[in-house]
Amino acid sequence: MTRLEEQMNFIIEVDKLKNIIRQNYLCDGSRKEDDADHSWHLALMCVILSEHANEKIDVLKTITMVLIHDIVEIDAGDTYAYDEKAHDSKRQRELAAADRIFNLLPKDQAKKMRDLWEEFEEGVTPEAKFAITLDRMQPVLLNASSNGKSWREHQVKLSQILSRNETTHEGSEVLWEFEKEMIYKNVKNGNIIDA
Amino acid sequence: MTRLEEQMNFIIEVDKLKNIIRQNYLCDGSRKEDDADHSWHLALMCVILSEHANEKIDVLKTITMVLIHDIVEIDAGDTYAYDEKAHDSKRQRELAAADRIFNLLPKDQAKKMRDLWEEFEEGVTPEAKFAITLDRMQPVLLNASSNGKSWREHQVKLSQILSRNETTHEGSEVLWEFEKEMIYKNVKNGNIIDA
Repeated sequence: MTRLEEQMNFIIEVDKLKNIIRQNYLCDGSRKEDDADHSWHLALMCVILSEHANEKIDVLKTITMVLIHDIVEIDAGDTYAYDEKAHDSKRQRELAAADRIFNLLPKDQAKKMRDLWEEFEEGVTPEAKFAITLDRMQPVLLNASSNGKSWREHQVKLSQILSRNETTHEGSEVLWEFEKEMIYKNVKNGNIIDA
Repeated sequence: MTRLEEQMNFIIEVDKLKNIIRQNYLCDGSRKEDDADHSWHLALMCVILSEHANEKIDVLKTITMVLIHDIVEIDAGDTYAYDEKAHDSKRQRELAAADRIFNLLPKDQAKKMRDLWEEFEEGVTPEAKFAITLDRMQPVLLNASSNGKSWREHQVKLSQILSRNETTHEGSEVLWEFEKEMIYKNVKNGNIIDA
């Protein structure tokens, strides 16, 4: 197989990300968003909001990270943020998926993409921290815009959201302040359970 | 309104891109893809395929371009590539949309994003040429993968595809050769009308 054929096989394979449906709705509440929609939104948010990162970040690297961060869900499925049982096996399922999917690429690119995915998972570098901030804030933005549709359906508690967002501030204090305001507004109006 | 509030208003507004449905199907033929899915796919293709650009390109700039290139369709709608009538009024509808949507951003970012959109539309710079190559090749890739589902539904002719792809080679001769091979294979198997 030529290098270009390997690249194209990867590009065709990842089309499946469009079929992985998340738990949160679009802002207008009309349907749940898919993983590709979500990843596009994060990438554009990164372009617009990078100035708010706590530390200076490499924007291209961060965008690449968010573009691929959910690709493992093609095999492993979307694990709902507040499904604790599914989270136990998440890491193993996602590692196997990373092995299969990134290795469709030519060796050098496979390594680069897989390393970037691991970097996101580890959440240590400024880029990974900011990518995680965006990944946590985006569903809150959509939930708040759709009058808490998904929060209400899943009877989500404030404590769950705060625990899920434990490290959000590490990428951007500014964005975390903004997100926190949205969260508490939705506790006040009853979309999030105050517990 | 604060700078951050302006940025967030834009980010919430562009969520509507997920509701703009294109004519081509996903690779598995299960549904038509939305504009955000499509833009995500182009951005990732840009990461993987930039080495095939005819001229050296700024990858971050090109990715940003493809992330926003269809945003005007939130107001102007998706104009099907082979709908000649709709193409007459396309430019006017899209200019008005660009005026409204990009201006939700803080002034400096509004100008930057709008200029980038115009650059894509003009197709003169290496980045715009490569972005257009990706934008033309991606639906061919999806159509070829779904056994020409959308081509057959619209009874698309080879001459229409070749005319639509007149400048595809300007971004990447390598990718255009690959795309041409897919096109002629689908003429041969009857998915594209040989006329």
